[in-house]
Amino acid sequence: MSVKVGDYILLIYDKNRRWLLKAEEGKIHHTHKGAVNFNDIIGKPYGTTVLSSTNHKFYVVKPTPMDLILKMQRTTQIIYPKDIGLILLNTGVVPGSRVVEAGTGSGALTTILANYVRPTGKVYSYENREEFQNIARKNLEKAGVIEYVELKNKDILEGIEEEQVDVVILDIATPWLAVKTAYEALKGGGNFASYSPTIDQVQKTVKELEKEKFTDMRTLECLVRYINVEEGKTRPETRMIGHTGYMTFARKVI
Amino acid sequence: MSVKVGDYILLIYDKNRRWLLKAEEGKIHHTHKGAVNFNDIIGKPYGTTVLSSTNHKFYVVKPTPMDLILKMQRTTQIIYPKDIGLILLNTGVVPGSRVVEAGTGSGALTTILANYVRPTGKVYSYENREEFQNIARKNLEKAGVIEYVELKNKDILEGIEEEQVDVVILDIATPWLAVKTAYEALKGGGNFASYSPTIDQVQKTVKELEKEKFTDMRTLECLVRYINVEEGKTRPETRMIGHTGYMTFARKVI
Amino acid sequence: MSVKVGDYILLIYDKNRRWLLKAEEGKIHHTHKGAVNFNDIIGKPYGTTVLSSTNHKFYVVKPTPMDLILKMQRTTQIIYPKDIGLILLNTGVVPGSRVVEAGTGSGALTTILANYVRPTGKVYSYENREEFQNIARKNLEKAGVIEYVELKNKDILEGIEEEQVDVVILDIATPWLAVKTAYEALKGGGNFASYSPTIDQVQKTVKELEKEKFTDMRTLECLVRYINVEEGKTRPETRMIGHTGYMTFARKVI
Amino acid sequence: MSVKVGDYILLIYDKNRRWLLKAEEGKIHHTHKGAVNFNDIIGKPYGTTVLSSTNHKFYVVKPTPMDLILKMQRTTQIIYPKDIGLILLNTGVVPGSRVVEAGTGSGALTTILANYVRPTGKVYSYENREEFQNIARKNLEKAGVIEYVELKNKDILEGIEEEQVDVVILDIATPWLAVKTAYEALKGGGNFASYSPTIDQVQKTVKELEKEKFTDMRTLECLVRYINVEEGKTRPETRMIGHTGYMTFARKVI
Repeated sequence: MSVKVGDYILLIYDKNRRWLLKAEEGKIHHTHKGAVNFNDIIGKPYGTTVLSSTNHKFYVVKPTPMDLILKMQRTTQIIYPKDIGLILLNTGVVPGSRVVEAGTGSGALTTILANYVRPTGKVYSYENREEFQNIARKNLEKAGVIEYVELKNKDILEGIEEEQVDVVILDIATPWLAVKTAYEALKGGGNFASYSPTIDQVQKTVKELEKEKFTDMRTLECLVRYINVEEGKTRPETRMIGHTGYMTFARKVI
Repeated sequence: MSVKVGDYILLIYDKNRRWLLKAEEGKIHHTHKGAVNFNDIIGKPYGTTVLSSTNHKFYVVKPTPMDLILKMQRTTQIIYPKDIGLILLNTGVVPGSRVVEAGTGSGALTTILANYVRPTGKVYSYENREEFQNIARKNLEKAGVIEYVELKNKDILEGIEEEQVDVVILDIATPWLAVKTAYEALKGGGNFASYSPTIDQVQKTVKELEKEKFTDMRTLECLVRYINVEEGKTRPETRMIGHTGYMTFARKVI
Repeated sequence: MSVKVGDYILLIYDKNRRWLLKAEEGKIHHTHKGAVNFNDIIGKPYGTTVLSSTNHKFYVVKPTPMDLILKMQRTTQIIYPKDIGLILLNTGVVPGSRVVEAGTGSGALTTILANYVRPTGKVYSYENREEFQNIARKNLEKAGVIEYVELKNKDILEGIEEEQVDVVILDIATPWLAVKTAYEALKGGGNFASYSPTIDQVQKTVKELEKEKFTDMRTLECLVRYINVEEGKTRPETRMIGHTGYMTFARKVI
Repeated sequence: MSVKVGDYILLIYDKNRRWLLKAEEGKIHHTHKGAVNFNDIIGKPYGTTVLSSTNHKFYVVKPTPMDLILKMQRTTQIIYPKDIGLILLNTGVVPGSRVVEAGTGSGALTTILANYVRPTGKVYSYENREEFQNIARKNLEKAGVIEYVELKNKDILEGIEEEQVDVVILDIATPWLAVKTAYEALKGGGNFASYSPTIDQVQKTVKELEKEKFTDMRTLECLVRYINVEEGKTRPETRMIGHTGYMTFARKVI
């Protein structure tokens, strides 16, 4: 498969220097390691190595959904891939799932969910801040998954309009206020997830889940540590992310 | 959606007592909390609450792929959901992906991969121990995803037969010996993953990745901690899993 | 230095099989790996290797304060050595310090503190449950540090009797109720520490510290992970302690 | 106790702005929050609050040994307090202990050890880089514990001169090369500790410990996470230190 005009490519120099770029004829991408000419890229197979004007090696790969969200325009802090993976597995989102999500934010979680419900499922994504929704729409178009998403310019606290959905995922400031509407929107046995940075949000949300007919409540956090692997010098990295958010999961029972 | 004869259901009593069961007319499931009669379950909607002979509440839900793998017959230690989530995101497996995996083991990772490459992708799963493969086949049938998997009774160290695949995932004792064949099987820009319990395996694998034309090598580990959320008594659980395996990722360049 | 009658020794077989024993002439210690005769131990230098009746190797070492507390008779969960180390460093307990502690519990933290305030300091340890105090007294005598401790059969919530102390350390169910008396007992710039398993206890305590004139509040938790080091098989242990308690530190200002 | 001319004080503005300063008459300390005049500090009790020229509150406390090492002049990365606490407890350093340490580095670990062996013990600290030793000497004088330390301008790899010591602690690039001399210097049952950033150093050291007559080998790592405690907003801090060094402990047997 080769790079075509209009494709989004990931151009990699090293761990910290990488760019998500649209392939356009004659386009020049300037970096501290020289200029990269898209005429050297278009028509070449993915995975190709290209030399910059100063003879540095750059690699051209097809971006994964994770690459896309790490490079997308952000309005707010996005959910980290480590946490998204746990949300996918714990809620059982699969191709064909109908998923309600709020808030859309920059559309990072939306992008991943849309990729995994394809081709027959749908993500209904609530966001009451229109400017965020507009940015999310662009990000979803860039990721090529907008057709699997219905962006809703509504506050989820005012109620979910969908019924019998498989999964509801909340990444909002007051998730406890949306527990009741989530319960009503879910089908029997459906999965609930909430993502919150503070333990106080978690406590309020779990208390509300206990009032509604939810079961199998679990709250967890996930730490990822990178390891520098080098012969004779292997060690974990000095710095790591110590906290992103807690995840709470539950299932609706009748 | 209601429970039909032949469905696999997850019967939940509490966090530690839950069973994956096939719905059969007249079947009685005996537990320490009384007997559950499937005649009270069949025809009822998922999410239903059923009382045992001793009046304890049990919940009937549709198992997610994660529920299936946590309850499947095991031949070896399976990869934990926390790690599978990271593998999915880091390799970019999506509906339509062609994925080579080894070894099949009990088919846990295979089950999740098969769910996510549906309906147009395929998982090619190598396993040279035939008894393991037979158990994996049953697990995949139970999970309803056998049609998206080609089980190969072959040792991946003797070579991958597929070409231009999107992703290669190794969970074998000597992943470094399969790096070369993984490189050859991958398409340009394709993603490589290896999962290993020991740091020595990681070091050998990374060394081999550096010899072949791979880029963007990352090694990481993932810790999940459960939180007991209870008003006035919220605290992380006393015990946790301290280590499962390291994950190493890379991308093929040409 | 050799083992004398009356000494407490640590007899080590392996990681999980070790005993704190008093050296007595003619005493036989029976284990699953044979009987160990104290006549083979008394008069030998510490560090000596002794053979059991079934020819297994046992090692005789002088117990450290940590060995003593891990083997002492317990009434309640003791504070882990990892947490004690952080408490020592963060409160600045040193030889000569005057330290108030509550509750005494089994006397584990008391034992370590008493060791480090020697020879000129003192630990004032409050405990209102007399049966706990009696066990703690025996543990402190066994550890040889009872002379550096004043065991007080009083509830710290009713007030600290000492004045101008260097450090106050609380390991009680309701530390926030003792913040005011801790403030009064401390000298200017004195260090406060509280150890609590739940986040709710921490929140209440910090709120109270903010009401009194404390500064430099810090709350932290400590995770220790053991590594199995074996050539070609090095990896962290599968299971670890995920939570013991949070530690909160502060300094009194005037 | 009040601040006297010549005392070292810790001046605290907030978590990140704090200074270790020598009290001198008429001295003015300039900060972004105004100037602090030592005439307002000298003669006042420790714990006093002083106002800067711009009316900001500063607190004056007596520095703990931990404060001293966090503020001392550094030549190399110091061992973190979290790790020092574990080393103290695992090696059983107490007042009266005779401890060999290498390398001295900036004298951070030396400072803490010297504080805890007081008043009858001694720390023998090896360092072959004279410029490091000079800085360490100044740091130890500032900390008031130089009399409990013998600074030795020697390479520990050339042999330990002391005999029958209680503890040997190594923080050097090639600890495995000093295992034999450590064994010889230790008394029977004596405690060995080694601190190393890489897993490769640990593997080599443990292999060497197994060749000599050591028992009770343990390798561990310690992670400390800070919690932001604020009503309704309590959460772990976003960033944390992911790795400092592995600690390996063992005991000499005969």
